[in-house]
Amino acid sequence: MSGNREQPLISVPQDVRFDDGVTLDSGRAFAPVTVRYETWGSLNRARSNGVLIVHAFSGDAHAAGYHPGGTLAGWWDNMIGPGKAFDTERYFVICSNVLGGCQGTTGPGSADPATGRPYGLSFPVVTVNDMVKVQKRLIDHLGIQRLLSVAGGSMGGMQALEWAVTYPDSIATAVVLASTSRLSAQGIAFDAVGRNAIMSDPLWNSGDYYDRQPPARGLAIARMLGHITYLSDESMGMKFGRKLQERSQFGFDFADQFAVESYLEHQGGKFVDRFDANSYIYLTKAMDYYDISERFGSLQAAFAQGAPRYLVISFTSDWLYPPYQSKEMVFAMMKAGKDVSYAELASPYGHDSFLLETERQAEIIAGFLESAYEEA
Amino acid sequence: MSGNREQPLISVPQDVRFDDGVTLDSGRAFAPVTVRYETWGSLNRARSNGVLIVHAFSGDAHAAGYHPGGTLAGWWDNMIGPGKAFDTERYFVICSNVLGGCQGTTGPGSADPATGRPYGLSFPVVTVNDMVKVQKRLIDHLGIQRLLSVAGGSMGGMQALEWAVTYPDSIATAVVLASTSRLSAQGIAFDAVGRNAIMSDPLWNSGDYYDRQPPARGLAIARMLGHITYLSDESMGMKFGRKLQERSQFGFDFADQFAVESYLEHQGGKFVDRFDANSYIYLTKAMDYYDISERFGSLQAAFAQGAPRYLVISFTSDWLYPPYQSKEMVFAMMKAGKDVSYAELASPYGHDSFLLETERQAEIIAGFLESAYEEA
Repeated sequence: MSGNREQPLISVPQDVRFDDGVTLDSGRAFAPVTVRYETWGSLNRARSNGVLIVHAFSGDAHAAGYHPGGTLAGWWDNMIGPGKAFDTERYFVICSNVLGGCQGTTGPGSADPATGRPYGLSFPVVTVNDMVKVQKRLIDHLGIQRLLSVAGGSMGGMQALEWAVTYPDSIATAVVLASTSRLSAQGIAFDAVGRNAIMSDPLWNSGDYYDRQPPARGLAIARMLGHITYLSDESMGMKFGRKLQERSQFGFDFADQFAVESYLEHQGGKFVDRFDANSYIYLTKAMDYYDISERFGSLQAAFAQGAPRYLVISFTSDWLYPPYQSKEMVFAMMKAGKDVSYAELASPYGHDSFLLETERQAEIIAGFLESAYEEA
Repeated sequence: MSGNREQPLISVPQDVRFDDGVTLDSGRAFAPVTVRYETWGSLNRARSNGVLIVHAFSGDAHAAGYHPGGTLAGWWDNMIGPGKAFDTERYFVICSNVLGGCQGTTGPGSADPATGRPYGLSFPVVTVNDMVKVQKRLIDHLGIQRLLSVAGGSMGGMQALEWAVTYPDSIATAVVLASTSRLSAQGIAFDAVGRNAIMSDPLWNSGDYYDRQPPARGLAIARMLGHITYLSDESMGMKFGRKLQERSQFGFDFADQFAVESYLEHQGGKFVDRFDANSYIYLTKAMDYYDISERFGSLQAAFAQGAPRYLVISFTSDWLYPPYQSKEMVFAMMKAGKDVSYAELASPYGHDSFLLETERQAEIIAGFLESAYEEA
């Protein structure tokens, strides 16, 4: 692989508006829907090199490179670019913000055309499948009939699975990282505590806060908790251990914060500047409800009519989406007669491994896409 | 073992007040201190059969039996009683509420004699060692020079360890269940999120809420989170799975609560009726600061001058106080030349196993105490 690796990748966020919207899983027709997306690389003549990146819970369309004049690299910049796993010299890479999100795509903070005011809690409950319906509209809009791959980690993995079983003819492969076909009771419980923290903040005001102070403390607490579940006991031990950030003379004072406490406070505080509390509620609910085996009767039945080829990767220390959940999917895919590659990668970084431990993951994905592209 | 197993064990809570109080680890002289305690069985002539039960974070002095006319069994009633692991026909069993608690022993909700008002945040920061100093006063008061054993799980295990290294001549054995010599960064992080939930509740009012509505939502959220960490992915899966408690027609509505959400809400709500939010803050801080290796230079050095004999039990699915932390203690005890029995029990119930999985635990403890008693 060659490439201008020194040259930073530049992308301009774009918006497309679908005036007729989508029909949601709840049966409700919802319109209009605006989608924020970014692309890298070029679509080939055969329109066969499209790769849709689907983001995790707190992600956005800015997956790689920089905005013109910007300094913030995309959230998966280590994976997307010339010569990288998602090689932008070979593939046309697309990433859009999800329905219900807060980074440009229509969500609870968007203006309801009927009232001119933000939806708040009048925004409809959306599912992972609803997010994917909107992405399908975007892909159609871009003139792509069949994607080479849909790839993502965590909630992104759920979307990739959903693409595979809902639009099997529209994708050649799905790449599912650190994900699951359904959250465990423990995963649901963590989400519920986060939502409770937000909804108990008086500033949340039943979701109606867009013209005043947002529920920043509640959202920060939800994020702090989320962060613990994205890391691992081991990685937190390596990074923070029992180090004190500040220590008074004798050390027994509530002002004595452990380093891990300061870190979480910092992460919580940063998050409220970029994320909407209502989106937190809607997107975690979508993850909690997500269960493709329920919709199709069984996991095997879901995959039986799904796309032909899968790459599934899990990480040893990921206790939020543990490897046993990936294996469950892999067995069902195999029983359904699909072509499946599976890797359980050793990593101490917990659920966040798919964002951090990219070396072996990148190699595996690059090889998988290359062979799929050559066969296509 | 014989015994009136049909006859319910009755205990009357008692209070003793130490007007001269204790000198805290912070250097502050703190007085007076009232201790709430209960006892079961009788002290023998040699005063050699005393067993002190030390409770976990949210426990209290009511460890066994019933109060006269009461219907609430003690929190360890399956372990304490005639013919049970802590056999009240053989041992004189004592349990007291900890310093900083809210169930009768002096804590942040107690009246400060200097002002006549509850301490609130003017209550001093206390350590696990401070709790143990107060228990030592109680044991002296009861006329016991040397306890046969100090036994407890979780924060109770910390106290048992603390007894062993601080008053090695005053105890023959320590029983340390589902515990640790120091919390991991992950454990500290969970505690920090719980405290943040309480302190972000406007009703917390910097700890000054005793004459008005308490910060019930914040405390409930902290408890919900705590509960997740006391259980395990497996036990939550067995107990709740993805069952919905309520389901609207199509199922995509925020009113659709998963059973696990309803359970946590219920647990959170129940907790606020019996627990004080400030005690939550003080006691979790005490656990976070607890680190006997830091105080003595190393774990081995701590145990070198500690009590002679230990029983340590951990549980396979306990991810809050994982077995590796118990093993770390056990190795240090062995290196320090102590007599150590260790069992890692297979159990799906997570950290709560020491309260729930009592059959094998009871057998092991009964045998351990019996041999210690016979040798004494």
